[in-house]
Amino acid sequence: MSEAEVSQAAADEGAGSSVIHSDERGGWEGIATLPYKRADGTWSGVTRQVLAGGPESPSSFELRYFELAPGGRSSYEKHRHEHAVVVLRGSGEVLLAGALHALRPGDFVRVAPGDAHQFRNTGNEPLGFLCVVDAERDAPTPLRGGGAGDPSCSVDRD
Amino acid sequence: MSEAEVSQAAADEGAGSSVIHSDERGGWEGIATLPYKRADGTWSGVTRQVLAGGPESPSSFELRYFELAPGGRSSYEKHRHEHAVVVLRGSGEVLLAGALHALRPGDFVRVAPGDAHQFRNTGNEPLGFLCVVDAERDAPTPLRGGGAGDPSCSVDRD
Repeated sequence: MSEAEVSQAAADEGAGSSVIHSDERGGWEGIATLPYKRADGTWSGVTRQVLAGGPESPSSFELRYFELAPGGRSSYEKHRHEHAVVVLRGSGEVLLAGALHALRPGDFVRVAPGDAHQFRNTGNEPLGFLCVVDAERDAPTPLRGGGAGDPSCSVDRD
Repeated sequence: MSEAEVSQAAADEGAGSSVIHSDERGGWEGIATLPYKRADGTWSGVTRQVLAGGPESPSSFELRYFELAPGGRSSYEKHRHEHAVVVLRGSGEVLLAGALHALRPGDFVRVAPGDAHQFRNTGNEPLGFLCVVDAERDAPTPLRGGGAGDPSCSVDRD
């Protein structure tokens, strides 16, 4: 096969049906583990895996898995798009529209458009959750307050 | 408040941010448990909860939770839209593009456009999974083969 054909074959394979078993750590083989986003001092200890969606996808959504290390926290931010979140593992809390809610596996979190939010791992194990968003969405607006985040991902929390 | 105002207030509340803890059975209080779809003899023992999406939603996706009772199975079908599935509980299998795959919690299943699929509970506990789809999507085409389904939801399987 030519390089183009190999590339096309890989794209075809990537676009096919698949079952990916989760490993012991809760990840999925062959799905890259990425930083949450650019290191900007507003978050710490967060990784991201994109399970579905992206440029090759025929769908208008993205399904992401986020994992926060103990002491980790996402950016405190807001945006016009909605988040639909289901917690898979660990424990923590979400600061959501000014109220703090404890989180445990199975919990469903809806972040409505415009509501400030921040996820925090308050436990000793990774806090993992799925988050569905529109593929086309606005950029978040960072907010003051919340936990400011520590790029060194300190386990000590304020 | 007038009836219209109460109705609007309820709609506003419904559209707001929320955290819904899962109950012991894996459900979410206040989110209706519905039949999978119209009883047509192609499926058995399947319920559906719509966690996000629907007519009031600003998003272009729907996040649904399906639960199959022991012996239950979804319709064997295909459609042009994609499914992104994550198994939350129980055990079972998916017949996917002609291949049978075992399922356990944490597994990710991508059903690519056009691929025939059927989910089956082969265990003794409920098989529950999340499934993300586009809000605007084509209707499924029912297929021959697979497990034909038994409206009485027999635990004995062929």
